[in-house]
Amino acid sequence: MATIDETHDAALRSWVASANGHADFPIQNLPLGVFSRAGEAARGGIAIGEMILDLAALAASGLLAGDALEAARAASGETLNPLLALGAGPRRALRRRVSALLTEGAAERAQVEPLLVARAEATLHLPARIADYTDFYVGIHHATNIGKLFRPDNPLLPNYKHVPIGYHGRASTVRASGAPVIRPNGQTKAPDAQAPAFGPIARLDYELELGVWMAQGNRLGQPIPIGEALDHVAGLSLLNDWSARDVQAWEYQPLGPFLAKNFLTTVSPWIVTMEALAPFRIPQPPRPEGDPQPLPYLWNEADQREGALSLDLEVGLSTAKMREEGLAARRLSQGPASNMYWTIAQMVTHHASNGCEMNPGDLLGTGTISGPEDGSQGSLMEITRAGREAVTLPTGETRTFLQDGDELMLSGRFVAAGAVSIGFGPCTGVVQAAPALA
Amino acid sequence: MATIDETHDAALRSWVASANGHADFPIQNLPLGVFSRAGEAARGGIAIGEMILDLAALAASGLLAGDALEAARAASGETLNPLLALGAGPRRALRRRVSALLTEGAAERAQVEPLLVARAEATLHLPARIADYTDFYVGIHHATNIGKLFRPDNPLLPNYKHVPIGYHGRASTVRASGAPVIRPNGQTKAPDAQAPAFGPIARLDYELELGVWMAQGNRLGQPIPIGEALDHVAGLSLLNDWSARDVQAWEYQPLGPFLAKNFLTTVSPWIVTMEALAPFRIPQPPRPEGDPQPLPYLWNEADQREGALSLDLEVGLSTAKMREEGLAARRLSQGPASNMYWTIAQMVTHHASNGCEMNPGDLLGTGTISGPEDGSQGSLMEITRAGREAVTLPTGETRTFLQDGDELMLSGRFVAAGAVSIGFGPCTGVVQAAPALA
Repeated sequence: MATIDETHDAALRSWVASANGHADFPIQNLPLGVFSRAGEAARGGIAIGEMILDLAALAASGLLAGDALEAARAASGETLNPLLALGAGPRRALRRRVSALLTEGAAERAQVEPLLVARAEATLHLPARIADYTDFYVGIHHATNIGKLFRPDNPLLPNYKHVPIGYHGRASTVRASGAPVIRPNGQTKAPDAQAPAFGPIARLDYELELGVWMAQGNRLGQPIPIGEALDHVAGLSLLNDWSARDVQAWEYQPLGPFLAKNFLTTVSPWIVTMEALAPFRIPQPPRPEGDPQPLPYLWNEADQREGALSLDLEVGLSTAKMREEGLAARRLSQGPASNMYWTIAQMVTHHASNGCEMNPGDLLGTGTISGPEDGSQGSLMEITRAGREAVTLPTGETRTFLQDGDELMLSGRFVAAGAVSIGFGPCTGVVQAAPALA
Repeated sequence: MATIDETHDAALRSWVASANGHADFPIQNLPLGVFSRAGEAARGGIAIGEMILDLAALAASGLLAGDALEAARAASGETLNPLLALGAGPRRALRRRVSALLTEGAAERAQVEPLLVARAEATLHLPARIADYTDFYVGIHHATNIGKLFRPDNPLLPNYKHVPIGYHGRASTVRASGAPVIRPNGQTKAPDAQAPAFGPIARLDYELELGVWMAQGNRLGQPIPIGEALDHVAGLSLLNDWSARDVQAWEYQPLGPFLAKNFLTTVSPWIVTMEALAPFRIPQPPRPEGDPQPLPYLWNEADQREGALSLDLEVGLSTAKMREEGLAARRLSQGPASNMYWTIAQMVTHHASNGCEMNPGDLLGTGTISGPEDGSQGSLMEITRAGREAVTLPTGETRTFLQDGDELMLSGRFVAAGAVSIGFGPCTGVVQAAPALA
């Protein structure tokens, strides 16, 4: 069961003033990331309000001992893979010690204060070297919405409610929030065209997903039982699975999406740890009457009791013109993360059920998380009915898909009674024009 | 154009006696790999006959200078990624110098001899840390054969002759030849079954492919023009894309194969370099009358003139009983690698055409290479018509798919008039029983 301890106390305040009341990074969060300052090597850090606690400096400070010290040392390099490999014990020890050090009235404040870096002065990097990236498809309303566009009478395929459907993505093109979204060139064929053509893609879309960061892995050939699956998960971030819908439609049969997806995937750069989100775990919504029971390898009572998340997700769009005119982003959707048909534990266990080797720093996407109703759909493909119904923006501009200059923003907020809300920080990207053809 | 130089001279002989007349590793080959001896760190090596030239030791020997020294130093660690990143120049300089050092009558023989390790005493590893693995589908007869099983009247999908179809695979489960093939457990559903079940998969198959090892990469957002594509390729190996056909049939819609493929991929551990295979490059077979011309980004005259390979591929099977009885492996298929509808350059250029970042050590599979006629098909799925027509073995045993204890062997042999033939060395695996269910 998820452990609630003193680090989650809603009354806890930090001597880092910007942390108190911070929408994403109050002292109850303490997410893990990798940052650098100009001219310095990248190293691990913990976000606290508008500051970052330098974990390499903390490891060298003499303020830590035991598991917490081991964890901080493992987080002192340019990726968090060594820390992720340690699993939950040292990660939690570090969290508890850092929480104490940052709490209002901490005796060590004078020693810790010099270890803080202003986030505004830091560049944030991917938190880990991603060895393998897999994208799932657990948003059942998204699968239904997309399926309806192709198969109105039979939107969900027969395997959907039995198999946590997933496929491999491209690890080399995952980037931290803020990376430019270079519109790809691609081969497309309009349904009524005689032949395909190659050039800048027209149907650039986003997908609202969660990213799951793997902690310690398994050995090749050894599955991960569902009861142990979350021991292999370090935490979560937001994930935008940018998509070229026109490429996807032409290329995806019979082996699945390829160049339609692998030009960029953006993640929020902070890992909100499993420890931090413990207060926000809720029961997995019961399956609708008549749906099949998952096979035993995917079923665990404890996972059903607290395998979902009390997490509100939101997407905003702002065009270049909107930013020029000082207008706020237009909200495209809002909805709960509980719209996932499969839990994170089920994703992990299914992935390793054939003995597939998982490694620390591996990234799993959940697939697009959409709600069943308008206003809660996690992609433009759904919102605009495949481009048939444009969205109107405050400037009078309209969008069916993303245009050059558009900025797309994902955000998420964990909410629970009696708990201080936490978030991921930004997951954004601005679309740039496609490279000129040779 | 592929460069022929003194290293390809058919008259060249080595003072390493086992190299002369060696089926795979005569002095004209000099493939790159990574090996270790008991208790020692892994490092790069070059195969010569039954020996391996230790590149870390060679780099320290004082026998090299300039580009060749840079290349050997880059090959001194436990992966060849740094060497692959250097591209063709240093790789070729190392080849020419090593060829001279190993040639019969070389003055340096006494200095080089201590740098040789018997292959029998070495463990071979993957030649590179594979950041991303992509599998293509360029074997048109395989695509047709498989398509016929599902769509007798329309076996090839409309995109096939326009798009080099590919999809992402799992990098973490690629292994060097000899790794055990642990039969996976998996979720399957027979067409007439009421519900799916989970357990040891029944339809274990292999796929005969080539592996393409990437040299220097490209930056995110920057495509690789087709005229430069092969500058980004270091060389080739054999690749076996082990497949669970029963899992594949149930899981692959709509996002493609996942657990059906990612439990293991086996490669022959030596990279036969682009330099070594220069004498074996042949014109890409012309497309059949009526087939579409590739789009301009995929078309290059030089690539068409020498983008295919004069390479014979073969698959052998031996059961545990056959090995007990001392029987030779049964040949399952034999055929030319020219049965590829798209060239390697077209695969690379298409992959990067949307700006997808490629990195040194990335692995591309060609997809199964089958011929059009019986006896040349690169998977049991094709040979047995999806399990309907069993293969009979010399022991009287029959096979539709692989059984525990079966050993599957891929081999390849480059052949050209006036050139000494070269090969890859073995690419094998023995099937083990599935892990017990929890």
